[in-house]
Amino acid sequence: MPPQPTLTLARFVGRSRPADVPPAVVHEAKRALLNWAGCAIGGSLHATVQRALAALAPFVGPAQATVLGRSERLDILHAALLNGMTSHTFDFDDTHLKTVIHPTGPVASALLALAEYLPVTGSAFLHALVLGVEVECRIGKAVYPSHYDVGWHITATTGVFGAAAGAAKLLGLSEQQLVWALGIAATQASGLREMFGSMCKPLHPGMAAKNGLYAALLAGKDFTSTTLGIEGKRGFANVLATARDYGAITERLGETWELAENTYKPFACGIVVHPTIDGCIQLRDEHHLQAEDIERIDIAVHPLVLELTGKPRPAVGLEGKFSVFHCAAVAVIDGAAGEAQFSDERVADARVAALRERVHATVDAALSEDAARVQITLRGGTILGRPVEHAIGSLARPMSDADLEAKFRGLCGPVLEPARIEALSRQCWNLDALASAGALARMTVPD
Amino acid sequence: MPPQPTLTLARFVGRSRPADVPPAVVHEAKRALLNWAGCAIGGSLHATVQRALAALAPFVGPAQATVLGRSERLDILHAALLNGMTSHTFDFDDTHLKTVIHPTGPVASALLALAEYLPVTGSAFLHALVLGVEVECRIGKAVYPSHYDVGWHITATTGVFGAAAGAAKLLGLSEQQLVWALGIAATQASGLREMFGSMCKPLHPGMAAKNGLYAALLAGKDFTSTTLGIEGKRGFANVLATARDYGAITERLGETWELAENTYKPFACGIVVHPTIDGCIQLRDEHHLQAEDIERIDIAVHPLVLELTGKPRPAVGLEGKFSVFHCAAVAVIDGAAGEAQFSDERVADARVAALRERVHATVDAALSEDAARVQITLRGGTILGRPVEHAIGSLARPMSDADLEAKFRGLCGPVLEPARIEALSRQCWNLDALASAGALARMTVPD
Repeated sequence: MPPQPTLTLARFVGRSRPADVPPAVVHEAKRALLNWAGCAIGGSLHATVQRALAALAPFVGPAQATVLGRSERLDILHAALLNGMTSHTFDFDDTHLKTVIHPTGPVASALLALAEYLPVTGSAFLHALVLGVEVECRIGKAVYPSHYDVGWHITATTGVFGAAAGAAKLLGLSEQQLVWALGIAATQASGLREMFGSMCKPLHPGMAAKNGLYAALLAGKDFTSTTLGIEGKRGFANVLATARDYGAITERLGETWELAENTYKPFACGIVVHPTIDGCIQLRDEHHLQAEDIERIDIAVHPLVLELTGKPRPAVGLEGKFSVFHCAAVAVIDGAAGEAQFSDERVADARVAALRERVHATVDAALSEDAARVQITLRGGTILGRPVEHAIGSLARPMSDADLEAKFRGLCGPVLEPARIEALSRQCWNLDALASAGALARMTVPD
Repeated sequence: MPPQPTLTLARFVGRSRPADVPPAVVHEAKRALLNWAGCAIGGSLHATVQRALAALAPFVGPAQATVLGRSERLDILHAALLNGMTSHTFDFDDTHLKTVIHPTGPVASALLALAEYLPVTGSAFLHALVLGVEVECRIGKAVYPSHYDVGWHITATTGVFGAAAGAAKLLGLSEQQLVWALGIAATQASGLREMFGSMCKPLHPGMAAKNGLYAALLAGKDFTSTTLGIEGKRGFANVLATARDYGAITERLGETWELAENTYKPFACGIVVHPTIDGCIQLRDEHHLQAEDIERIDIAVHPLVLELTGKPRPAVGLEGKFSVFHCAAVAVIDGAAGEAQFSDERVADARVAALRERVHATVDAALSEDAARVQITLRGGTILGRPVEHAIGSLARPMSDADLEAKFRGLCGPVLEPARIEALSRQCWNLDALASAGALARMTVPD
């Protein structure tokens, strides 16, 4: 009997009940949702979104769903597109480390839009989010790394399956319709890594959300596809990857949960710099450090760090993300490395620039990618050392719920009033008790 | 200097003027348009479209553009999707033989929708259609056959570029924006051959039309992509094909025209049966044959014909397309092989079934794929023979304008009044003199 990944996934999604999901996984879904919503609200003022809205506004449908953090209400397909886009604009969303998929964007963007259109309880929403991420990440594991190495942006190409599966669950599709939905998703899978560095990168999870929603809506009216969307001779896994392992899709399905392997970025820059920032913030907080008291900062890092972020004197905000020197300086001065620390203003700030010049980096090939050593020498000679074995945000040292709340506050700060931010955060943690998941979306609209 | 296919195409589309296109190519664009419109109108009552409309109706935008042959008016993105779908439903649309692309569907579906929204003259429309097909087919030639062999439905994957380029021309995009539009198209390129035999096959040119329109609209508001959408290391040609020839894109661009290589199917079934049908119709018309006068029909065909269409007793309409025996019988009785000849009723008809039993087929490996020999023996002993060297519809023996009109009439017959059909046909031939291309779309709506 050959493996039947498409049918197996369809059957699993169709038969799953909310009670089948362990409470810890439901809690992880809330963490993922809070993190996703913060990224989307924070990204909602970006030029990417402004330009997309300017281009598409004349063609959108009825005001059915919210663009998080904004006053525009769009049809659910376009709301899914826009929210998927905003949530990836800062590259600050979650990461399924085994596949480098950013899993929540495509799925939650489709589901929350649908939850504003249908009656969807908080519990049903979290259940569908868990299932969508499960489908997305298992398909990702089946084709990773060859699929990614070929050049596919795996968040886009597997996200469309996750969005389709989650939306199909909310729409109550039959097993046959679920098979078709996965097929219609397969034939829309696209998104090239060549686009990294352009507005098309955040477009990708938006496309995945929108197209996954198309797949579920069409299949729900018996629009057919072939039944072997994933494993067919000319299906997704054979055409878009050079190697595949269907066991990664079918084995222990319903027993293990990919969402439990999800991670969240504490800092708004590439993950390689995170151990350095982590060590700097720890020393700063423990010793109440002021920039003026510091003689020098010495960091020892994995070789990749200087390769990717070795820019000593960044000129604009975006370049700051590619400067481990800037990252260390703002970490000590601000105790943070959110979007605010990577603005043009912050990069040009005289105090930050002065400390940046006193940061010295050396490579230590013995360090792992999520490790670093930070040593701060104070004027007067005191030396403070901090080895970081696993950076905050790694699977070994996950961000706490409080960390995620603080990140959410930082992201929403430029868009929403503090009281609204706290209320939203409470709603997220309490979502499984709420009658309407869609209400959460409407709470993100500024007054 | 490495080849720059993306920039070269963008520059070509941006700089091209209607006067640069030879009159014969403009005429071919009219032929392609008439053929496409007929397929779309004829397909407009199909279940594929009914289900797609049922699924998407709650989410569509303003009534901006026509679904050809129907009363619904949708936003231009969804009109492009639906018309691309209807035009491929019967597999009766045009074919660029070098690449097996069905070129007009993705491009014309995007452009005609846009032409109902913008002011677009008939001449500007035909120019954009020629350019879109040029971009689509040249990109196809650059990656064919490896791209198709891998499993991509090339009409979908290259159609999105054609639709983007044509729409970008109508929108007046700058060269930089055209480069971005091609990139946004590249990152949406999708469509798997695994879907053949399901409703997703006609969905593909619809997706290409819609997504190409997205690409042009977004780029028009400075939504960026990378500049190497086609040739980048992780761009379209490297990721979706195992071999590529950029010279097929750049060489003699603006001197040769892919539309001049376009072909049209005279019969609503697989191309291998066409020589047989052609020979039968010729003998029938010349000798005013009646089924009852015929003792037997002997056909000699290429081996592929019996392999693909060897079904002696089809039970339903679709099976009739896979029966060279049925095809020969209806060709003699009806003098045609349009959709009407492949209905369940026609396949079950007693007179057709009786003649079908008197058709005898033999294989002759010396015959080329577009050749056949037909011999009809009349009761009384007269033998009428007809060798067909190149079937009607091949590049060597193209359908005449009158043939295309007859096909158009046949396709539109179940949907529109005869007077309207004639008026539409006249509008097509006269399009370059008309102030509004969009008016053509509105004329396809039944009273």
